[in-house]
Amino acid sequence: MSWKITSTSLQPEQLAVEESLYALANGYLGVRGNFEEGYQKNLPTIRGTYINAYHDIVDISYGEKFIGYPETQQKIVNIMDAQTIELFITSGGIEEKFSLFEGEVLSYDRHLHLDKGYTERNIHWRSPNGKELRLTFERIVSFERKELFAIRVTITPVNFTGKVKIRSAVNGDVLNYVNENDPRVGNHREPLLFTVSTKSEDGLTYVLNRTKRSNLETACVTDYIFSTGERHDVVQEKQVLTVVTMDLTTTVTFEKRNVYVDTLRHGDHIVAVGKEIQQTIHELTFKQLLTEQQTYLNQFWKTADIKIYGDEEIQVGIRFNLYQLLQSAGRDPYSFIAAKGLSGEGYEGHYFWDTEIYMLPLFIMTKPEIARGLLLYRYSKLEQAKVRAKEMGHRKGALYPWRTISGTECSPYYPGGSAQYHISADIAYSFIQYYLATSDEEFLHEYAAEVLFETARLWIETGHFRDGKFRIDCVTGPDEYTALVNNNYYTNVMAKYNLMWAAKVYKDLANKNKAQFDQLVGRLQLLEREVMEWGHAAANMYLPYDERLDINPQDDTFLQKAIWDFEGTPREHYPLLLHYHPLTLYRYQVCKQADTVLAHFLLEDEQSFSTIKNSYNYYEKITTHDSSLSSCIFSIMAAKIGDSEKAYQYFRETVRMDLDNIQGNTKDGLHLANMGGAWLAIVFGFAGLRIKESGLYLSPILPKAWSGYECTLQYKGRLLHINITKQSLSIQNIGPTVDLFIYNKPYTISNNQTIEIEK
Amino acid sequence: MSWKITSTSLQPEQLAVEESLYALANGYLGVRGNFEEGYQKNLPTIRGTYINAYHDIVDISYGEKFIGYPETQQKIVNIMDAQTIELFITSGGIEEKFSLFEGEVLSYDRHLHLDKGYTERNIHWRSPNGKELRLTFERIVSFERKELFAIRVTITPVNFTGKVKIRSAVNGDVLNYVNENDPRVGNHREPLLFTVSTKSEDGLTYVLNRTKRSNLETACVTDYIFSTGERHDVVQEKQVLTVVTMDLTTTVTFEKRNVYVDTLRHGDHIVAVGKEIQQTIHELTFKQLLTEQQTYLNQFWKTADIKIYGDEEIQVGIRFNLYQLLQSAGRDPYSFIAAKGLSGEGYEGHYFWDTEIYMLPLFIMTKPEIARGLLLYRYSKLEQAKVRAKEMGHRKGALYPWRTISGTECSPYYPGGSAQYHISADIAYSFIQYYLATSDEEFLHEYAAEVLFETARLWIETGHFRDGKFRIDCVTGPDEYTALVNNNYYTNVMAKYNLMWAAKVYKDLANKNKAQFDQLVGRLQLLEREVMEWGHAAANMYLPYDERLDINPQDDTFLQKAIWDFEGTPREHYPLLLHYHPLTLYRYQVCKQADTVLAHFLLEDEQSFSTIKNSYNYYEKITTHDSSLSSCIFSIMAAKIGDSEKAYQYFRETVRMDLDNIQGNTKDGLHLANMGGAWLAIVFGFAGLRIKESGLYLSPILPKAWSGYECTLQYKGRLLHINITKQSLSIQNIGPTVDLFIYNKPYTISNNQTIEIEK
Repeated sequence: MSWKITSTSLQPEQLAVEESLYALANGYLGVRGNFEEGYQKNLPTIRGTYINAYHDIVDISYGEKFIGYPETQQKIVNIMDAQTIELFITSGGIEEKFSLFEGEVLSYDRHLHLDKGYTERNIHWRSPNGKELRLTFERIVSFERKELFAIRVTITPVNFTGKVKIRSAVNGDVLNYVNENDPRVGNHREPLLFTVSTKSEDGLTYVLNRTKRSNLETACVTDYIFSTGERHDVVQEKQVLTVVTMDLTTTVTFEKRNVYVDTLRHGDHIVAVGKEIQQTIHELTFKQLLTEQQTYLNQFWKTADIKIYGDEEIQVGIRFNLYQLLQSAGRDPYSFIAAKGLSGEGYEGHYFWDTEIYMLPLFIMTKPEIARGLLLYRYSKLEQAKVRAKEMGHRKGALYPWRTISGTECSPYYPGGSAQYHISADIAYSFIQYYLATSDEEFLHEYAAEVLFETARLWIETGHFRDGKFRIDCVTGPDEYTALVNNNYYTNVMAKYNLMWAAKVYKDLANKNKAQFDQLVGRLQLLEREVMEWGHAAANMYLPYDERLDINPQDDTFLQKAIWDFEGTPREHYPLLLHYHPLTLYRYQVCKQADTVLAHFLLEDEQSFSTIKNSYNYYEKITTHDSSLSSCIFSIMAAKIGDSEKAYQYFRETVRMDLDNIQGNTKDGLHLANMGGAWLAIVFGFAGLRIKESGLYLSPILPKAWSGYECTLQYKGRLLHINITKQSLSIQNIGPTVDLFIYNKPYTISNNQTIEIEK
Repeated sequence: MSWKITSTSLQPEQLAVEESLYALANGYLGVRGNFEEGYQKNLPTIRGTYINAYHDIVDISYGEKFIGYPETQQKIVNIMDAQTIELFITSGGIEEKFSLFEGEVLSYDRHLHLDKGYTERNIHWRSPNGKELRLTFERIVSFERKELFAIRVTITPVNFTGKVKIRSAVNGDVLNYVNENDPRVGNHREPLLFTVSTKSEDGLTYVLNRTKRSNLETACVTDYIFSTGERHDVVQEKQVLTVVTMDLTTTVTFEKRNVYVDTLRHGDHIVAVGKEIQQTIHELTFKQLLTEQQTYLNQFWKTADIKIYGDEEIQVGIRFNLYQLLQSAGRDPYSFIAAKGLSGEGYEGHYFWDTEIYMLPLFIMTKPEIARGLLLYRYSKLEQAKVRAKEMGHRKGALYPWRTISGTECSPYYPGGSAQYHISADIAYSFIQYYLATSDEEFLHEYAAEVLFETARLWIETGHFRDGKFRIDCVTGPDEYTALVNNNYYTNVMAKYNLMWAAKVYKDLANKNKAQFDQLVGRLQLLEREVMEWGHAAANMYLPYDERLDINPQDDTFLQKAIWDFEGTPREHYPLLLHYHPLTLYRYQVCKQADTVLAHFLLEDEQSFSTIKNSYNYYEKITTHDSSLSSCIFSIMAAKIGDSEKAYQYFRETVRMDLDNIQGNTKDGLHLANMGGAWLAIVFGFAGLRIKESGLYLSPILPKAWSGYECTLQYKGRLLHINITKQSLSIQNIGPTVDLFIYNKPYTISNNQTIEIEK
């Protein structure tokens, strides 16, 4: 049970939600959990298949356009639909089409196997004509063979014999989902891609599509394996139908193996490549594919699993989240982790800062090779970030885009988009965190250094000194219910860290690798004077502080605004952004999400504990958590200030946000950042992990509801296994001797040693 | 000379500018000064005819859309083109088409007669074949017959005899002008109207067009009067051509009289109405039409003229401005004064706050009946302003739209649009100014009261008390290089005045007309408590003040920002809005236009003279005057603080801005607000006029360059004639005895008395 998500619901709204929950992906390819046989007509659905970073380009329309506005944006493309498998049974001369919305469903269950990496649907169905059928649909999107999406259908006649006709389609005539009234979903109605060719040859079929403006091609090459029967391919302009007819006297199986290839990764002759891949797997049984999948997942869970004792719902929730993160993370230089992973089209497949701040820590601490790859994606977009800085009027530096796929700014709404300059500091922060957790000095010098230098330059360009303090005006912080403010605490403190580390790495590189240093400094035309400015700005960074309240104000004028009328706001007016004009929201003290509180999590040594605690208490009262990036941070910080009840309450909202559709929009895709946040809430929240220059810190607490929990962390080449029970805390080290801080006291653990601390 | 604008240029770019300069209008109908015979191919041109407030509705596209964003906007429609008159001369069997861009132009001049209200073009032309022709084109858009646009062509053969063929068109196939890269011009490419029918009957032709979404119809009914000749009408789907052939042995004339009618003003059967109007004028000669026009203008200039002694260029400049304002002001409840009047499509024919603050004073002080009509337009849009306030999340009050035609918000960019809440205070201010200048108590009680009450309500909804002060957060002031700020000085001080007057008028109405009071208060469900809040908020309005500099900061954080790098900004980067992203502009102390300085003009008694003077000096250094609303205000305030040199310098930029195309975009239409500003700069600047509750104030100064100037003002039923010379100031009063302040000293002038003050 704790490795499985199960559903028996056929409620229309829940089905759309389950399309996201049962989505399968592997970082490259993602397929939503639609029913192969389709729904009833007019049932709400978003039928989708996506390749990470596979996008088209669309114009951005502006009622009023200004200089520096992006003219186009990338958009993830819903590609060829290979999910469709329709079943027709014939018995006594009568043909009936299988549908869960006709006849009688005698039993129905659906599962996502988190340990094995596949989904299944089991159905016992009685047709309107009384014919009973048992059906199992199994699906896999392979971690080992990233192009493969396979479906196996097992069909058993219960009370009749006859024939089954299977009508399987790969359809190139697909559209993206639109919702004009929700700014979180796309609103572009034109088709983004068209079908170039369709064919059936060598026992395979394929559909080749091309995007309209980005000129990227993708092909779906399909192979069929089934019990004895007759097959017939119907090649149409935009789709290929494969019709298979089998005798149905006993159990028969039907496998549909789709290989998705694209010109971003597979060269120009993608159909040929797709066929080759099909060849290599043709001899493998479905069972073998499942075994491969399980082997991959065993490896993953060995280092990533979190065990929770005493709460089954949470246990399965956290595993679900980790599994989805694993499914979503790009594994090549083209791709990153989209806000919705590969589970839906919300936020149009764009990458945001969420990846760095909410998702990357999991990979850094459990699968650092994936983290490294993700950071390389950002490194590869550095040139575009430098161009963007110029577009925004800066003479130098790198301004990373608020939302993007291929590297250019895709945000049409700058007060909540481009103005979030903190994204550049967030990226810098993640490079530093990776270094602190891995000691990967080669990466630091080869990649991180350049990112740090160029982002540091941006801050010098953006801020200015006044009365001896370095100030940053007119930016938007993480909280999207406040915009275009001066000295957003989060932005300033993150910029400070960015500047400080840029100066530090500059010196480090100069000392350790003069040739590489000279080469980089020469290429960037970096002056010693600039590095001095970084240090000077960092040392004198203005961080707003209110003495009376002993809190950090979110920005210079935040505390002067009126507090939002929470009492006069009906429950159905949340999330506020769907009911109040931005101008109205900006006018009040009301936060969509953690902002200063997030800064206190990421850089806790910048303020005293009392300021952190007071700030938490202050902002908690005015934060709506309308963003899915919020509850997890409040959970972590509640744990930090010792309010374990609150920490647990926020954690619960976090960990099951999508499983319970708490935000109401899971149908548009999963909230990946929130999922990463659930992991953060356990590891950084309850277990109190912090990765600092001075070392690794743990301060575990145990939520009342649990009898214990366990997690594993990779740290500088070691595997640290942490086990917390009501009585004690034990840490096992597999790897070289490690120094670390537990409850702020230093400990040393040698290889294979376990230390145990009584509570 | 001083009553005439003259040009002899045929430069392509100047021709496009002259289309605006030579535009004729009467507040209802406007026709740009295009050449009847057309230009060379590919010459830049905006061929346009407009009816004030005649608009279509278009969708506003947003890359990212939020709640409360307007979904559609109105857009002035370029209507049927009746300007075209092509001439073909035939002599010796050779037909040649008249064009200023072929053959030889032996002489060419063009005039706008400001005293007589018509334009003429005189041409002496030699055809490629050596035939010489003298031509005069005269045009009139009648002030007395608002529907009428007439053209007379006088044709004289110089060195040949033969025939002239005239091909005159009324074309319904017209489009609006677009420029996607200039936010000040429209970017909607679809046709806004289509031709319903075309016909020739009863000697008249007509073209009937209908807009696509607003379903407004307009017809152009045309009559022709000409010397002996043959006429032939060609009725096509979207246009009517009238071909007239005449012998050309001596001077012949050809008149084209177009009557434009629309369903906003002329009922449903507009073609019939248009025909009737044609009948009433058919017997009138062109000369009689010109005489009518001159009579109307004589009347206007009698009260509105400003005489400048010693500077001919300025003299003609100011008269040109006043003439254009007269041409632009709407005279019915549907129409107002657009940013470009009826001279072009810039800002899409929208009405802004400019009308109240920059243009209305001229009408209040010289033609109060036009001012009254304009205020009634705003009154008629009060209900829509109340709806808009609700859309923006307020429980009550009226929020006037930033830009509109028919009353709904048309701004797609709220930080520079809807966020300019001050527009509601500006409208309130203009109602008060009208009352103070006219003592029109009936209007005050019947119309102004309601506007004042509803706008006062808005401020209570928008602001809040903190530390005993009433504060207004997150609005944008007049300066568009700063947005979304707290406590914009201009907004707060104007809101204060609005609130104070709302409370005052409430009491006044209660005292003077209890029945009307009860009715209004009942209808608005206005509570005594609300009125107390108005007074309390006004009395405790927070007005930012910086003690060190003794200035009013533009907003709470303005002075903390870095000052824009003016030295590092190349000249060609102005106007900055076309070269820097708004976010970049908002980050610095840099003003597009007068903001605090404007507040000091409108409400000078709110601050000490030293604060006003220091503020002027401070803001002058950081203001680019990229807006045409700026120089005039700096001129007025320079005069106020005694810097008459600077006052004159700014005034010169103002008064000839369009005549000299100083902003470079006169082709898109005239800068009407700036034109009103030129009048303000003389009357409120040099003559020092202020209209206050305590009375009328004058403090004239004489610019060095002039030997004297004269102006006339209407004030509470009197005509005050002011004459300033190097030696003295004289004021003549025609009307009841008047008390007024001259150089802040009280004087009394009885009827027909002239007082003279030696300087």
